[in-house]
Amino acid sequence: SAEEGPEVIKAHEAINHEPTPLDIERDGSDVYVNMTAQITDIEIDDGYNYKAWTFNGEAPGPLVVVNEGDTIHFTLDNMDPSIPHSMDFHAVHTAPDKGFADVAPNEEGTFVYEASNPGVFMYHCGTDPVLSHIANGMHGVIIVQPDDGYPTDDEVDQEYVIIQNEWYKYNDLDNMTNEEPSQVVLSSKALHDGQPNTNGTVGALIDEPLKAKVGDKVRFYINNVGPNEMSSFHVIGTLFDDVYIDGNPANHQEGMQTVGLPASGGAVVEFIVKEPGTYKFVTHQFNHVQKGGVGKLIVTE
Amino acid sequence: SAEEGPEVIKAHEAINHEPTPLDIERDGSDVYVNMTAQITDIEIDDGYNYKAWTFNGEAPGPLVVVNEGDTIHFTLDNMDPSIPHSMDFHAVHTAPDKGFADVAPNEEGTFVYEASNPGVFMYHCGTDPVLSHIANGMHGVIIVQPDDGYPTDDEVDQEYVIIQNEWYKYNDLDNMTNEEPSQVVLSSKALHDGQPNTNGTVGALIDEPLKAKVGDKVRFYINNVGPNEMSSFHVIGTLFDDVYIDGNPANHQEGMQTVGLPASGGAVVEFIVKEPGTYKFVTHQFNHVQKGGVGKLIVTE
Amino acid sequence: SAEEGPEVIKAHEAINHEPTPLDIERDGSDVYVNMTAQITDIEIDDGYNYKAWTFNGEAPGPLVVVNEGDTIHFTLDNMDPSIPHSMDFHAVHTAPDKGFADVAPNEEGTFVYEASNPGVFMYHCGTDPVLSHIANGMHGVIIVQPDDGYPTDDEVDQEYVIIQNEWYKYNDLDNMTNEEPSQVVLSSKALHDGQPNTNGTVGALIDEPLKAKVGDKVRFYINNVGPNEMSSFHVIGTLFDDVYIDGNPANHQEGMQTVGLPASGGAVVEFIVKEPGTYKFVTHQFNHVQKGGVGKLIVTE
Ligand SMILES: [Cu+2]
Ligand SMILES: [Cu+2]
Ligand SMILES: [Cu+2]
Ligand SMILES: [Cu+2]
Ligand SMILES: [Cu+2]
Ligand SMILES: [Cu+2]
Ligand code: NA
Ligand code: NA
Ligand code: NA
Ligand code: NA
Ligand code: NA
Ligand code: NA
Ligand SMILES: [Zn+2]
Ligand SMILES: [Zn+2]
Ligand SMILES: [Zn+2]
Ligand SMILES: [Zn+2]
Ligand SMILES: [Zn+2]
Ligand SMILES: [Zn+2]
Ligand SMILES: [Zn+2]
Ligand SMILES: [Zn+2]
Ligand SMILES: [Zn+2]
Repeated sequence: SAEEGPEVIKAHEAINHEPTPLDIERDGSDVYVNMTAQITDIEIDDGYNYKAWTFNGEAPGPLVVVNEGDTIHFTLDNMDPSIPHSMDFHAVHTAPDKGFADVAPNEEGTFVYEASNPGVFMYHCGTDPVLSHIANGMHGVIIVQPDDGYPTDDEVDQEYVIIQNEWYKYNDLDNMTNEEPSQVVLSSKALHDGQPNTNGTVGALIDEPLKAKVGDKVRFYINNVGPNEMSSFHVIGTLFDDVYIDGNPANHQEGMQTVGLPASGGAVVEFIVKEPGTYKFVTHQFNHVQKGGVGKLIVTE
Repeated sequence: SAEEGPEVIKAHEAINHEPTPLDIERDGSDVYVNMTAQITDIEIDDGYNYKAWTFNGEAPGPLVVVNEGDTIHFTLDNMDPSIPHSMDFHAVHTAPDKGFADVAPNEEGTFVYEASNPGVFMYHCGTDPVLSHIANGMHGVIIVQPDDGYPTDDEVDQEYVIIQNEWYKYNDLDNMTNEEPSQVVLSSKALHDGQPNTNGTVGALIDEPLKAKVGDKVRFYINNVGPNEMSSFHVIGTLFDDVYIDGNPANHQEGMQTVGLPASGGAVVEFIVKEPGTYKFVTHQFNHVQKGGVGKLIVTE
Repeated sequence: SAEEGPEVIKAHEAINHEPTPLDIERDGSDVYVNMTAQITDIEIDDGYNYKAWTFNGEAPGPLVVVNEGDTIHFTLDNMDPSIPHSMDFHAVHTAPDKGFADVAPNEEGTFVYEASNPGVFMYHCGTDPVLSHIANGMHGVIIVQPDDGYPTDDEVDQEYVIIQNEWYKYNDLDNMTNEEPSQVVLSSKALHDGQPNTNGTVGALIDEPLKAKVGDKVRFYINNVGPNEMSSFHVIGTLFDDVYIDGNPANHQEGMQTVGLPASGGAVVEFIVKEPGTYKFVTHQFNHVQKGGVGKLIVTE
């Protein structure tokens, strides 16, 4: 029971797969994306190891970036010896019972999709019960870069990816279903060389802050992978000059203090940092900041 | 007390009114809508009967469809022998203390409104305490069809109505006020002949799935009647090409993965299904999927 | 502990500072805003005094109104003998570690900002733990009036400010972090002479209702200061003809029944009241109405 602490699935007990780097290769507009489902320990808070169900040993999983119009050839190598896993990309059109089908333990599955819509999309394992698979760590972000870009592309000096996720009691479906999250965290995935690439751990973006220069316009690609809570994303000390809901260039809003993201919702947000110093970003639901929902952007001359 | 189980109001104990079909008649732009407030058992989960407070014996109540510019002549026949009930249509302008006034037990009341705004609107009983009346089942949807239609009307091949609602412990105002919902469910009301017309029960739209053909553009008129939770509405395997917030043609968004609906918020969402198969739709707050918040759309050649 | 009831900080026990009127003076486009951090008893429900941490002895704090393009010279006089406090205006660009820096007990701090973005913005104390400072009462609204106004300015006959906030167990960070709010309330701050200027107390806008005339277009500047919950703002008996998300004239939506506000989100909403009577406004999350989230607008000939 919950009182007795986390219950690790018997077959997972001896497993701690080394993270597998994302394997992504391009041939014209054909993109070959190879990912794993694997069981990997993640220290989600100081001294607290969570034997996460992951894509590639990261939670959130690795960032996938493709172009509008690409064909994605996706292969999932399920290294889990005991449970099927699968992939649901919010970016694509497919019959879920085929394109997002379960891959059996120790097997591989390949699926082909068109990336016809630009935006900042959640991906996640879609195997039943989906709540367990997401809450145990099987979520991430795929960016589909718009053909014609964003109207504000020329103004942007720095860009980062920020993901919000929650953690619950270990693999405890009742807790995941009925209780408040234990941790609410923000992470970043490297969009460019040298950027932080973190898991969704308490303090991840305090320990590895993001960086910008005075006067920069900074873009965040954000997504709230849930599984249960909304996000009220806000950067302290500035405002969002430009917001594109779900990352679609057509969905433009201006001058926003805070962007509400439903579970699995995304956005592109852009803001200017005018003075050197430390800018924290949060979900402005401050109970969730108490649980870890805060990161840092350091701005220097 | 809650521990002792549901408490049925004494006067309701022996009542289980047969559902009363919606009585709606048109004379030019005058529409005569006759509804009942009645006490009817609804099996909200397998073997679990809820003695619901309803409009016309359904929860959500019957779908009402009118045209922008119509005059609604609304009559409520309150068949409840013990409690007043009333009607609050979100679609209209009226002084609530008159137009949404209580109708006493065993009496009738008639009210007249203009339907001057297009959209997908919640209706509900507005009698105090409103939380009890909504949570016990007195909610539904009225669609006001826009004079000039939606810009995408010509593209749409199938259209359905989807409603999200929550259930709590039976008639337990403390539970409704302070606790998480026991069930979160999706239902559909027949907009066209032969479509499913269900109550908000666990599995309603698994047992009676919606249908479309490969290549169809499907429109859902959606509303989240609450009473307490937001919805993060999503269809697995596709994206919303076009979204009209609250169903107003002026509030157009594009390429969205998920639409956040506040309590009582609505939308029109449109998406294409490109391959045959089974597409589930959910609130992407997956704790609520565990509680019933999922339905099926079956797509065939 | 929580069971033993509210814990007042030792140094606050003997303090009940008289509310300090907002001191705001203009010299061209330079606006001098002087506020206090002070400890003041607020009767948040009948007979329930909350020794609030406040700006100027009000919770929400006093309404601040400036013009787009103004320079704000802000001074915080921290009258609290024991805890630092600070100011975070969502309306401005500043390095938070400087512009929103802590002001030590019994000291003053002055900060200068440009108000370069129009809208309806939250302000709050930003001292750690921020959740305690907001939930204990240190929040409010600053309106930055747009240079070119709103496209609907000429239509508006009455305008009011409405703020939603939550209360938790007294100064109980664990309760604030993990539990549902004890009260959810709506308040108003006088934007024009003779308007109600209330604290966020249960029944505030029932006891001091807002007023309009038949046929008026009414504008509400609304903000949900949280700290934790979203708002689903709705006026019973009417619809929002025009909505400007976060109060930015560029973010226009039409014909909405309900506006979802993330934590700290704002909006301008405008609606017409066509008949004399009493119009309640609520967050349509009716569990929160049970906790106080309701006010009244009285419309007369
Ligand atoms: Cu999985
Ligand atoms: Cu999904
Ligand atoms: Cu009723
Ligand atoms: Cu309502
Ligand atoms: Cu403070
Ligand atoms: Cu803030
Ligand atoms: Na720049
Ligand atoms: Na800010
Ligand atoms: Na079509
Ligand atoms: Na999808
Ligand atoms: Na007018
Ligand atoms: Na209304
Ligand atoms: Zn999985
Ligand atoms: Zn929460
Ligand atoms: Zn811009
Ligand atoms: Zn009722
Ligand atoms: Zn919930
Ligand atoms: Zn379109
Ligand atoms: Zn403070
Ligand atoms: Zn709540
Ligand atoms: Zn208008």
